[in-house]
Amino acid sequence: MNIAILGFGTVGQGIYRVLEDRRPALEGQCGQELQVKSILVRDLHKDRGAFRASSLPLTDSFEEILADDSVEIVFEVMSDGAKGIEYIRQLLARGKHVISANKAAIAGAFFELQETARAAGAHFRYEAAAAGGIPLIDPLGKIRHLNSISYLGGIINSSTNYILSELSLEKPREEVFAEALTLGVLEDDPTNDVEGYDARRKIAILASMIVAQEIREMDIPTIGICELSDDDFAWAGSEGRRLKLIAALTQDDSSYSLSVLPTALAETNPLACVGGIMNQVRLEGDTIGSLVFSGTGGGMLSTAHGLWADFLEVISSRPTYYMNSGKGKADHSLQRTAAFYLREAEKARGEIKQISVKEALCLRDKGFTVIEIA
Amino acid sequence: MNIAILGFGTVGQGIYRVLEDRRPALEGQCGQELQVKSILVRDLHKDRGAFRASSLPLTDSFEEILADDSVEIVFEVMSDGAKGIEYIRQLLARGKHVISANKAAIAGAFFELQETARAAGAHFRYEAAAAGGIPLIDPLGKIRHLNSISYLGGIINSSTNYILSELSLEKPREEVFAEALTLGVLEDDPTNDVEGYDARRKIAILASMIVAQEIREMDIPTIGICELSDDDFAWAGSEGRRLKLIAALTQDDSSYSLSVLPTALAETNPLACVGGIMNQVRLEGDTIGSLVFSGTGGGMLSTAHGLWADFLEVISSRPTYYMNSGKGKADHSLQRTAAFYLREAEKARGEIKQISVKEALCLRDKGFTVIEIA
Repeated sequence: MNIAILGFGTVGQGIYRVLEDRRPALEGQCGQELQVKSILVRDLHKDRGAFRASSLPLTDSFEEILADDSVEIVFEVMSDGAKGIEYIRQLLARGKHVISANKAAIAGAFFELQETARAAGAHFRYEAAAAGGIPLIDPLGKIRHLNSISYLGGIINSSTNYILSELSLEKPREEVFAEALTLGVLEDDPTNDVEGYDARRKIAILASMIVAQEIREMDIPTIGICELSDDDFAWAGSEGRRLKLIAALTQDDSSYSLSVLPTALAETNPLACVGGIMNQVRLEGDTIGSLVFSGTGGGMLSTAHGLWADFLEVISSRPTYYMNSGKGKADHSLQRTAAFYLREAEKARGEIKQISVKEALCLRDKGFTVIEIA
Repeated sequence: MNIAILGFGTVGQGIYRVLEDRRPALEGQCGQELQVKSILVRDLHKDRGAFRASSLPLTDSFEEILADDSVEIVFEVMSDGAKGIEYIRQLLARGKHVISANKAAIAGAFFELQETARAAGAHFRYEAAAAGGIPLIDPLGKIRHLNSISYLGGIINSSTNYILSELSLEKPREEVFAEALTLGVLEDDPTNDVEGYDARRKIAILASMIVAQEIREMDIPTIGICELSDDDFAWAGSEGRRLKLIAALTQDDSSYSLSVLPTALAETNPLACVGGIMNQVRLEGDTIGSLVFSGTGGGMLSTAHGLWADFLEVISSRPTYYMNSGKGKADHSLQRTAAFYLREAEKARGEIKQISVKEALCLRDKGFTVIEIA
C-alpha cells in the first residue's frame, strides 16, 4: 500500500519515524507492505536534519501526488490552512483517504470537507487535530450516538499550559518564554498559542462534531494568556487557585456556548494538577456520566500516534462522517454568565464580579485583565 | 436487525434502556430497525421491576436463541463464567457476533474465545469488561500496534474504591458497608470485590491483550482490602497517603509482572484523587507517552454504554482479534520488589521494608497486613 505525506515538519517526520519503528505491526494490520511513495515539501534542497534528503521520496509537486493512482492514503500535515483545505478537497474528490492534523484547514471548512469525503466514499480523519495523540476524536464518534453531551472542555493547548505551569512557579517571564522556544514547546511566532487561537480552533472542531452545526472560529469568545501579570499569579496563589487556559463547550437542547478563557481553577479541580505539556479534556454525557481523557497534547511522536491510529481505522472500518444537522441551536456564548476576576491595567489587584462573557470581553477591550473563576 | 440479550440483571436492563433512549441514533447508524428479539433469563416469572415482563421477549431457552438465524448480534451479560464461556463459544461458532461484559468468561478462556471468533469471522468484543464504559479496550486495540507498552494500571474496581474513599473519611466500617449495599455499589456477596478477584480478572484480561500470552487469573498476586484496619487508615493519613486497590501490569522485552494490591499512594499521585465509584487507568507507551483514562467504572448506564459502543464497532468495522503470540515472556510477578508497609496482626503500627511481592504474600499468610507504597 502506498501512502503520501504532505508536509515534512516535526509532525511529518514523526509519521515517517513511527512507520520505521513499527513497520512489522503496521504491515501486519494492512496485510501488505507499506511504502511512503511521496513526501510533499516546499523546498527540495532544505536540510532534513536526521534524515538524508536523498533517501526520502521528496517532491514539490502536489499534482504529481494527486495524479498518482497508486497512492491510497495521504497524511496532510502542512501548516497552511487555506492550502490544506484546497489539497484535502482535491484528494478526497479523487477518492483518496485523507488523514490530517491541520487544525486550520479542518476548522476552516469542517462540514464542506465532511461532505466532500462522504460524496466520494473516502475516509477523512483527524484524531491528531485536537489533544494530539490522546484518543478523543475517535471515541467521540461513538459517544455522540449514545449520549446527550452537556459539556466538553479542558486544557487543549500544550504551549500555554507549559508556560502557565512554569510561571506559577514564580520563574521570570523572559526565562520561561526563552526555555519554551528552546524546548520547541513554543513556535517562533507564538501568536497562535498565546492568544488562544490554537485552542479556539480545536474547540471549534470538537464543537462542530458535537453541536452538529456550523461553528465559526471567529465567533468564539477568546482571551489568551498575554495579559496575565505576576500579580495575577500571586493573587491566584493566595486564593489556592491555578491559572489555566480553558476551552469549553456547554450545550443543552436549544443552545450552546463556547469560550477560550484564562481561568482560575480551585486546587481541588482535577485540571489544576495538569501541568507542563499535558492536555486533559472532560466530557459529560447523560449515559456515560463523566469521562476524562489525559495525555501528552502534542509533540512529534504523540501527534504521529494520533495520525497512525487514524490509519488503522481507515484500513479496518467503514468511514464515518459528521454532517451539519441544520438544527439551529442558538449561540449563547456571549450571554453565558460566570464569576470573573477583573483587574484594571496598572493596578495590582482586581475584584470578582458575576458578569456575562460579553461584558468580560468589553472590559478586556478597555484594558482590564479578565480571568474566569471555576 | 435482530439482537438478543443473555441475562437481564442490572446490565441487561441497561442495554434495553439505552436502546429505548437512543433508538433513532442507533438505527440511524445501522441503517435499519433494531429489535430485541429475545432475552434469556433463568426465571420467566420473576418480577422485572420497572419493566412489564409481558412486554419483554423473555425466554429461558438458550438453544432457541442459538438456532434463531435472524439474530445477528448477542449481548452476553450473565454472571456465570462457565456458562458464559460455553454460550459465547456456541454463538461465535454459529457466526453470531458476541458483545460481552462477562469478566469471568472472558478472563477464563481469553485466547480460546478469540480463536473461535477468528475461525468464524465473527466479532467478539468486550469494552465493558474492564473499567465499565470508559473507552479503554477499543483504543488499546490500536495503541498496542503503535507502542511498546511498559505499564498499564490503576483503579479498576468501583466497589472497593467507594469503600476505601468512605473509610478514609473515618466513617464507621459497618455504616460504609451497609450504605454500599443499599446503593448497589456492593453485591450481596461482596467477596469478588473486597478480595480483589474482580480487579484481578480485569487486569488478567488487559494483560492478555498486551502481553499476548496466556495469563492465568490465579497466578496474579492478589490481596484484597479486608485486612485494612482503622489504624492503617490513620497511618496513611498521617503520612499524607491514600489507600487504594491498585491493579497493575509492568512489562519489558523479556518479562512481565502483575499484581492487585492495597497501595498507599502519595497525595500528589493523580490516582489518590480518584474517589467513589470512579475508575482511572494509566498507560505508558514509547510512542504515545503517558495516557490516562478516567470515568465511572461501572453501574447500569456506564456499562451499557460500553456494550453499545461495541455494537457501533461491530456494525462498522472489520473484526479484530487478540492472538497468543507464544512469546514466552517470563512471569516476574513474585520477584518484583517494592516498598511495603507491614503490620503484624494485633499491633497498631507496622514498618516499611523493601521486599519482593513473594515475601509480601508470605507475610500476609502469616497474618500481617500488607500495603504497597507508591
